[in-house]
Amino acid sequence: MTEDLVIGIDVGGTNMRSALVDPRGRIVLQSRTATGAWLEGRETARRLIEECRSLRLAASGFGAAVRAAGLGVAGRIDPREGRVVFSPNLPRMNGYPLAAELRTALDLPVVMLNDADCFGIGESRLGAGRSIPNWVGLTLGTGVGGCLVLDNHLWTGDNLGFAGEIGHMIVVPGGRPCACGARGCLEAYASGRALVEGFLEAAATGAPVAGIEQRPLEPAKVAARDVHRLALQGDPLAREVFRRMGWAIGLALSNCFTVLGVRHAVIGGGVSAGWDQFEGALVVSLAEHATMFEAADAVIRRGVLGDDAAPLGAALAAWRQLGHGA
Amino acid sequence: MTEDLVIGIDVGGTNMRSALVDPRGRIVLQSRTATGAWLEGRETARRLIEECRSLRLAASGFGAAVRAAGLGVAGRIDPREGRVVFSPNLPRMNGYPLAAELRTALDLPVVMLNDADCFGIGESRLGAGRSIPNWVGLTLGTGVGGCLVLDNHLWTGDNLGFAGEIGHMIVVPGGRPCACGARGCLEAYASGRALVEGFLEAAATGAPVAGIEQRPLEPAKVAARDVHRLALQGDPLAREVFRRMGWAIGLALSNCFTVLGVRHAVIGGGVSAGWDQFEGALVVSLAEHATMFEAADAVIRRGVLGDDAAPLGAALAAWRQLGHGA
Repeated sequence: MTEDLVIGIDVGGTNMRSALVDPRGRIVLQSRTATGAWLEGRETARRLIEECRSLRLAASGFGAAVRAAGLGVAGRIDPREGRVVFSPNLPRMNGYPLAAELRTALDLPVVMLNDADCFGIGESRLGAGRSIPNWVGLTLGTGVGGCLVLDNHLWTGDNLGFAGEIGHMIVVPGGRPCACGARGCLEAYASGRALVEGFLEAAATGAPVAGIEQRPLEPAKVAARDVHRLALQGDPLAREVFRRMGWAIGLALSNCFTVLGVRHAVIGGGVSAGWDQFEGALVVSLAEHATMFEAADAVIRRGVLGDDAAPLGAALAAWRQLGHGA
Repeated sequence: MTEDLVIGIDVGGTNMRSALVDPRGRIVLQSRTATGAWLEGRETARRLIEECRSLRLAASGFGAAVRAAGLGVAGRIDPREGRVVFSPNLPRMNGYPLAAELRTALDLPVVMLNDADCFGIGESRLGAGRSIPNWVGLTLGTGVGGCLVLDNHLWTGDNLGFAGEIGHMIVVPGGRPCACGARGCLEAYASGRALVEGFLEAAATGAPVAGIEQRPLEPAKVAARDVHRLALQGDPLAREVFRRMGWAIGLALSNCFTVLGVRHAVIGGGVSAGWDQFEGALVVSLAEHATMFEAADAVIRRGVLGDDAAPLGAALAAWRQLGHGA
């Protein structure tokens, strides 16, 4: 008997993560390819198709057949047309019919979702959100993704192609410019980009850097993990941008809990690796801003699936498209 | 045959509105009594019980029987215990077992809800929210109430006794103090109290008042409707506080739409009578802050049930308790 599998892919601002996933949500094989905000839609599609073909070949190598693909992409999605409508962090994908092209090239059903929604499906079914009916999800990466799980299901709102976009909730009116074009979004304070930009700005203004040796900065090469490393070493500027990040997340989650009447959040994404540097400020901020709920009742968890959450969630969405799973 | 009726009551910061409602949601009889933030819980309960008894008497007068009562109260509610947990605008009600006392005194099933949630049920079933599956509700009164209707039902979240508290979403971190104890809540910019306080503050600083004659102010007697009247007469200070109100509502609704992926809102409450003075700023603010959705797709409606929305919704909740209606 041929085993049935699906492909789950997370197209992020930096990497593309793919996985072959069985009907029980187990990853059979996975891989990672570089992407980048500078890639044209056509080139991203070409790499995606290539990736899917090699996964399909691998599947047939051990007697399995790929039945569908699920695609998670950062940004606002038109799920019917399989098109990226607006992606602040993959701007060259705007308007590109990525899913449609994949569908044609692979002759497979392809479902496309927002990447943070994939995170929500993955963590809800197999991770930190299991057995929690209502929760708010945040993915901290190049940008800040968000999702809502309500009544045990990913909430899709009016099916406008976006929902749970907590990263673009405005936390500081007129504040820092965001990749989306607005000012003061959570993403402008809590993303990997915000950490790097905030740190470089502070360093450039010549603010006193106490306790660590002066070091030459190569702005183009500084990544969020460098800022994290510096914070761990005690750099006060690096610590300050992480504190600001925690403050902004605490405020945004407090607002979400107040509006939704819920008390659980799950935070994932690569930049959540800096947890130790922002958790304290997050907890203080949540308590400072909460009046309708007891801050002590709030439960903020880290995601447990790591980088697998989004490709797994995309795969589960593909399985669902095929009639498997809730 | 005896006709069955229920009582619906809205206990607001200023008035108590009661209605006898039939199973189809028609108001058979209604009345209004003064309440006030200064009233002790015991005195409020006494007035409520008296009101219910006279409505019951009236019902029996035309051959009908009262089967239950629904109670809408501003604030966080413990629905199981029938207790007001925390009410920023009826502070003396905090902790008071209002529903339990009513239940005992009247020997009737009594259901207690947040007053803005009653507005949500009323407008959803019989008003501006009919046929709109997902919408955000705001009630502008002494404070700012909020509710969410999701999938055609009032959203109650984790049943923590509050949900949809958009009035306590923080729109300006560290901003104006709010009755709830936090700073910068929507309510601190968009409530009747905020209008009056903002206007009096501006007038007291001696800011130039152009275009109208100087008038003696009696701060204790100024109400939101007076600020509205002054705005209609062209008073720039009054107009400014209404503009600020519209700006804050536009920002809060933009955040709600971005997080929920929905595009409809219904605004009610007595202070929504100032619609002409804040709508323009609201629309501008919504467009300025929206990036995930097209501001042109957003639909902001006024409630159509007026002061009847909350007592009607409370009555519908009582009918539901009895097994009538969805």
